[in-house]
Amino acid sequence: MTGSGLNHRDSGRREPGQAGMHAGVSLNGQASAPGSPLGLHRVLEPAGVLPQAAWRLDARAAIWPDEVRVDVTRLNLDAASFRQLRETHDGNPDKIRASVLEIVRTRGKMQNPVTGSGGMLTGTVAETGPDSPLGLAAGDKIATLVSLSLTPLVITDGLASWDGKSEQVPCEGHAILFGRSIAAKLPDDLPAELALSVMDVCGAPALTHRVVAACQARSSHTRSSQAGGPVVAIIGAAGKSGSLSAAAARQAGAARIIGVVPHEAEAQLLRDAGGPPGLPDQPSQPGLVDEIVIADARNPVAVSRAIATAGGPADVTVVCVDVPGCEGGAILATAQGGTVIFFSMATSFTAAALGAEGVAADVTMLVGNGYVPGHAQLALDLIRAQPAVRGLFQRRIGEHSSPNHGSPSQGE
Amino acid sequence: MTGSGLNHRDSGRREPGQAGMHAGVSLNGQASAPGSPLGLHRVLEPAGVLPQAAWRLDARAAIWPDEVRVDVTRLNLDAASFRQLRETHDGNPDKIRASVLEIVRTRGKMQNPVTGSGGMLTGTVAETGPDSPLGLAAGDKIATLVSLSLTPLVITDGLASWDGKSEQVPCEGHAILFGRSIAAKLPDDLPAELALSVMDVCGAPALTHRVVAACQARSSHTRSSQAGGPVVAIIGAAGKSGSLSAAAARQAGAARIIGVVPHEAEAQLLRDAGGPPGLPDQPSQPGLVDEIVIADARNPVAVSRAIATAGGPADVTVVCVDVPGCEGGAILATAQGGTVIFFSMATSFTAAALGAEGVAADVTMLVGNGYVPGHAQLALDLIRAQPAVRGLFQRRIGEHSSPNHGSPSQGE
Repeated sequence: MTGSGLNHRDSGRREPGQAGMHAGVSLNGQASAPGSPLGLHRVLEPAGVLPQAAWRLDARAAIWPDEVRVDVTRLNLDAASFRQLRETHDGNPDKIRASVLEIVRTRGKMQNPVTGSGGMLTGTVAETGPDSPLGLAAGDKIATLVSLSLTPLVITDGLASWDGKSEQVPCEGHAILFGRSIAAKLPDDLPAELALSVMDVCGAPALTHRVVAACQARSSHTRSSQAGGPVVAIIGAAGKSGSLSAAAARQAGAARIIGVVPHEAEAQLLRDAGGPPGLPDQPSQPGLVDEIVIADARNPVAVSRAIATAGGPADVTVVCVDVPGCEGGAILATAQGGTVIFFSMATSFTAAALGAEGVAADVTMLVGNGYVPGHAQLALDLIRAQPAVRGLFQRRIGEHSSPNHGSPSQGE
Repeated sequence: MTGSGLNHRDSGRREPGQAGMHAGVSLNGQASAPGSPLGLHRVLEPAGVLPQAAWRLDARAAIWPDEVRVDVTRLNLDAASFRQLRETHDGNPDKIRASVLEIVRTRGKMQNPVTGSGGMLTGTVAETGPDSPLGLAAGDKIATLVSLSLTPLVITDGLASWDGKSEQVPCEGHAILFGRSIAAKLPDDLPAELALSVMDVCGAPALTHRVVAACQARSSHTRSSQAGGPVVAIIGAAGKSGSLSAAAARQAGAARIIGVVPHEAEAQLLRDAGGPPGLPDQPSQPGLVDEIVIADARNPVAVSRAIATAGGPADVTVVCVDVPGCEGGAILATAQGGTVIFFSMATSFTAAALGAEGVAADVTMLVGNGYVPGHAQLALDLIRAQPAVRGLFQRRIGEHSSPNHGSPSQGE
């Protein structure tokens, strides 16, 4: 253990039939009846929905036996949410602060009603219920890995310490974790901001690792894999989730990693991170990726041709760019029998489904699930072991603190 | 072979780098240069996109060496497309006919500009290029299994034989199949309308079969599988794709199949199709499903509780209902380590991704790819072998010909 262990319920087979059985139990100041591990007992309206879909949650401080209360230190608002708030209020810090306070006061959670998104928070564990399965203790410094959009929250300091100019929100108050919530202890050996930005995208490297390892395990049986392991293409390889996914693919046994970036500046970022040297006939140093190609991810013909030229098609293609219209290129760039993992929230379900059918592509297409057991640990260990990825992250964090903050990067 | 063999290109590893290399070659009346197997050479505007994304295709009758020209017999418009046309024109047949003719004339394909969807067609092969990989011969009666939204089409009879009252459109004209298009010969032993409606959803049973068989193969190694095979839940089990998926799951070795339907009428349909008898303590006859539960698929707690009560959670959950908001229930109803297959075009990518993360669900979520090699053959064989499924289909086809046609069924 490095102090960054992921804590999650791991009691085997779930029992969804039990979920919410006690949702009608009243709180009575001191909780005694068991709550729902999904937090259904905290849903005030509309009744019967999951906390994420609820309009309003009960955010009172008294905890159910399987809950944990956290003293909040900082909120990290989702980028899309903060952008919406900033644009709506013309960047006026007072109005932005007031807006966040009003949302949390009326909803019992920080879920932007326009974007639907939340973010995450850091804090210190204040109290743990006797039945909490999360393995936390009072005093632990943690980050939540479930969205603020489902986390009961009360703000008590009026956001007096927040300048309203970035999505990093210093804050006092409390938040509630359910039995099925996910939280990770903050590591002692990494700066908090770095650890947070790693945890924010840690589902991508974890699922990439799992898929590449499974592909590697059966690679000797398939004609579409090269000797030594599968070919992996990372679309958006210089971004946070992309660079971590590349490192995870390498660890899982990828034979060749092709990094796709939108322009020369991102390519240079990847080269600086230990990619191959500029001369194609010189032996490559083992870097974050083996080949760097520049292509517009939204152009199916361009991106598939670029990946083919660099040693593709890919056995596993990982889509990490948050721009719409990348489905076709990812599908075309993938070998028959291969797998596409979509991590971009801009992915269109129908474009993926119809796109594969339209070109007779027998590819497995995965919805990038943000939860894989052990995901935070795996991502933090990659950051510790890979100075190249750490350098990319620190550069991204620096960019986000700069005045250029608002310009969306395709590489994210 | 039963006369219904699926024909598709199966030349192993794809070469997307070659795709569209000759897109700039002009047709010159007689084709001689090789075309793109994706049909890129038929895209007129905008340049460089795939045929499905194109505004306008070149639908001229002369074929490239790897193409096939089909004399069209009938179009089967996508249900959403026909509904849009009917509503826009208040059901006026002349206006609906004129609208379809105008779309095909201007776009070179029958892609509804509002819904973006197409449909499929049946016809007789008129001419095959010497390099066509589809295995078709002049005179073959076929159905296309790629969407009309990417198929070059010319209508020559002014739709004089169409009454404009259903999505079944008798029609004369020609259509073009590319090297990577998919077409299936129409079976001699099944009515054309039944065969078409089976082929229309044949991706669902094929992918379900593959996933359940893989789950079954490793079931002895996982704690979440019952003796004899995985537990499979089919949400929308009385519909076309749902009933075929249930039959496919049975064939692939499912130990228990739980059919979820929205109301009693659909439950009765399943019972009539050979489901379990009404008395729970009476030994069940092997039917299409082993348990029938009635639940609103949009209510996560209700649907997961119902499936748990019927012997869940499921190792494989298949979503076949075309209503939005079914992601959460499917995720909650699935065991940790299990798989959810989303076939509904109403699936929201973000709802699935964030929904799983929000409840710490380690489930594999698949985008239902409409193409799996051998899908038409598998589905037609299931219909031949399973009178229960055939009965359900014939009832559905009957409903679609009735005045109730327009009411969307959750079971579809």
